[in-house]
Amino acid sequence: MVVGELIEEVDLLVVGGGPGGYTAALHAAALGRRVTLVEEGGPAALGGACLHVGCIPSKALIEVASHAWRGHELAELGAAKTAGGFDGDRFQVGKAALIARLASGVAGQLANAGVRVVEGRATLTAADRVSVHSGADGALVAQLRFRDAILATGSRPIELPALPYDGVTVLDSAGALALADVPEALAVVGGGYIGLELGIAFAKLGARVSIVEARERLLPELPKALLRPLLKRLAELGVAIHVNALAVGHADGRLRCEQADGAALVDADKVIVAVGRRPNVDGLGLGDAGLADPAGALLAPAPDRRIAEHVAAIGDIVPGPALAHKATAEARVAAEALSGRRVAFDPAAIPLVVFSDPEIASAGQTAAQARDAGVDAIEVVMPLAASGRAATMAATHGFVQLVVDPQADAIIGAHIVAPHASELIAEAVLAIELRASPEDLALTIHPHPTLSELFAEAAERTPATS
Amino acid sequence: MVVGELIEEVDLLVVGGGPGGYTAALHAAALGRRVTLVEEGGPAALGGACLHVGCIPSKALIEVASHAWRGHELAELGAAKTAGGFDGDRFQVGKAALIARLASGVAGQLANAGVRVVEGRATLTAADRVSVHSGADGALVAQLRFRDAILATGSRPIELPALPYDGVTVLDSAGALALADVPEALAVVGGGYIGLELGIAFAKLGARVSIVEARERLLPELPKALLRPLLKRLAELGVAIHVNALAVGHADGRLRCEQADGAALVDADKVIVAVGRRPNVDGLGLGDAGLADPAGALLAPAPDRRIAEHVAAIGDIVPGPALAHKATAEARVAAEALSGRRVAFDPAAIPLVVFSDPEIASAGQTAAQARDAGVDAIEVVMPLAASGRAATMAATHGFVQLVVDPQADAIIGAHIVAPHASELIAEAVLAIELRASPEDLALTIHPHPTLSELFAEAAERTPATS
Repeated sequence: MVVGELIEEVDLLVVGGGPGGYTAALHAAALGRRVTLVEEGGPAALGGACLHVGCIPSKALIEVASHAWRGHELAELGAAKTAGGFDGDRFQVGKAALIARLASGVAGQLANAGVRVVEGRATLTAADRVSVHSGADGALVAQLRFRDAILATGSRPIELPALPYDGVTVLDSAGALALADVPEALAVVGGGYIGLELGIAFAKLGARVSIVEARERLLPELPKALLRPLLKRLAELGVAIHVNALAVGHADGRLRCEQADGAALVDADKVIVAVGRRPNVDGLGLGDAGLADPAGALLAPAPDRRIAEHVAAIGDIVPGPALAHKATAEARVAAEALSGRRVAFDPAAIPLVVFSDPEIASAGQTAAQARDAGVDAIEVVMPLAASGRAATMAATHGFVQLVVDPQADAIIGAHIVAPHASELIAEAVLAIELRASPEDLALTIHPHPTLSELFAEAAERTPATS
Repeated sequence: MVVGELIEEVDLLVVGGGPGGYTAALHAAALGRRVTLVEEGGPAALGGACLHVGCIPSKALIEVASHAWRGHELAELGAAKTAGGFDGDRFQVGKAALIARLASGVAGQLANAGVRVVEGRATLTAADRVSVHSGADGALVAQLRFRDAILATGSRPIELPALPYDGVTVLDSAGALALADVPEALAVVGGGYIGLELGIAFAKLGARVSIVEARERLLPELPKALLRPLLKRLAELGVAIHVNALAVGHADGRLRCEQADGAALVDADKVIVAVGRRPNVDGLGLGDAGLADPAGALLAPAPDRRIAEHVAAIGDIVPGPALAHKATAEARVAAEALSGRRVAFDPAAIPLVVFSDPEIASAGQTAAQARDAGVDAIEVVMPLAASGRAATMAATHGFVQLVVDPQADAIIGAHIVAPHASELIAEAVLAIELRASPEDLALTIHPHPTLSELFAEAAERTPATS
């Protein structure tokens, strides 16, 4: 008997083992569902792009790079300078070990929850059925009929036709994180958060970095004010910035960029292209399952993340920021919706974080966005210069900004450029979710000396409502 | 005419220019009061012990020391090791500059608020009057009759009779922070948070450190579980720990300690004594003002911090932890109470933070404390090992613990041992103040990858209430 001939019954199927997929599987299992998770790379690939080639290894690189530069920053306080000497081979070994440990942790959680993991590529063949193919030859390994399914296949880097990835010179972010040597001259095409994180890290490790961005400024998806402290740091690091510049090709160690006033050649023995991500929906069989619109794109999900009665979609393949924490939040909603609960994905704030230097974190609305929505919002800014803790860290570039709706007497946004902004934003997101007032925040005792005190100080400076 | 003969009228008098005093002055000024602040050290000393010899300079030393050790910790990720080479002279210069800048910032804030700063020592001579003396000769520089007064004179290190401070070998924490060289062998007497912070910092800078604690363990004021990750780090740093040990004298480069089973000699070319702080109330003239009990101690403050109709006391001279953020919170209450508002100092949580390695932060109740109070509390722990972000930081020792009251469906405590615990605790304090439920925390989207995610994960693992 051929394996694929037997159609197996599956209670709840999850397609994709990234943060969205495995969280959905764990949550569904906790709700009593019998869960099968199909992951193309098998158990070793659990954790998805985020764990294996994205947020996790990039943070490890950023930690090492920050250390390499920190001595310089702390020199005024007598710190020893860090000698260059990044050991790229050792980084790769350490990186692989930490990824393997975390992936194994995910596998262990799934096993404890009774989730079955199947290795292969799932393709929908009907509204309630997938075939699973595996290996280089694409052999059919299983056919599964599901009661409910959650699609969480994630995304992959967009390739520029003029700069195809070759894995040697033109790299995607995964390729950049696999480098065992720091490039001498590095061009980063794309000034979004991934490009900035990598560009800053390699600059700190000694590379001569240029960032090439087609739009008019770096981080165009974030409020402009958040960029200013970063530009100071980029200047200190000697990073060259080319905006309104199209990268049109690479040859002879140079990247060719076209700008309105002509072309420029940028030294680059390596090029990282980070211009966005494309959802992994091709090959999923959406048409056969009735899950695609006439143009072939995934149907839009309902608030409970369902795209059909028994199928939900989460993460990078549905609208919203392509962020792991958005996917995991959707995962819980989808698992509950398909298990008969009335739920909706309706967060008051999805924080955005950039592990740049200083870090950037943004949650909720900006004052301008609120005003566009008819709310006469107030914005209160506390600069890092007002913080004793920042002074002890030799941190000077940045601020904490609160956005307040005075009518509702509620905090509706927070935007931070500071060391540890990625951690600091958590308090603000909670405040926004709980509709805390500025007074709530001001009266909450913040420990001294910390950067979090700036929240309380901003809240205290918010003009009285009445 | 002699200066002191003229009695000046003061609307609101603040005695002491530390975090409590200057915050009280600013807050009272914002409420429309005309404020005079008397500070013994004059404008240059604004910011108090915290800014000049305490929390701020110690954090600067800790930053530099952490950097010196971080290369070792990150070696498995290929980081360059930091060469020793702490430049103590440069640290002193940088430290002085940052302190001067922050003190000048406080002076500027007070000037902008119209607060008059008088240099001198204030002594109460009647219930509504102080005399102010200045200089080495104690010359009378002013006599002030006040409508209201806020006493915020702070505290100073306790001296051990057997180990009197000599400013050369036996040092208080201020003296330790003034060292221009790292001692070769350092003994720290007192295993509380100040002793631990300094001991760890000097160990990272290369000193051979011994900690001598009279009680049965380090950090006896904190739950025992919080100490375990720290003990691992102390072992890695080679710090020797002597508990149940009384330091009884220092001679010939050795500290003599008495334990139940005999005496020990601990190598020490420098000794830091950090065994607690004593309130600065002697010489304040409490008796003459009717503000002392028969034993001469300051009267206990009411919930609004008043110790008499027109006098309030805040900070280290009143009960509670001797922490700057407790003083500043009391300062606002006192300024409002004396300005006719009905207020009380009644925080749900005063966070305690220790800038050890890893950092420790604790807010609200422990499960044991809650059970003693008749609440059948649940405690949920997430180890750092479960965090991808921790892995990227090579951080392995620590955890996040939430304490939940299932009946009230509310978070009542949080205890953290982790990098940046001092910042992470802010979210938990807000949750406790707002009586957030575990579900509130679990549904708040925490950015990935961060340590703050551990809060959401702990909240999600809290057993359902019903």
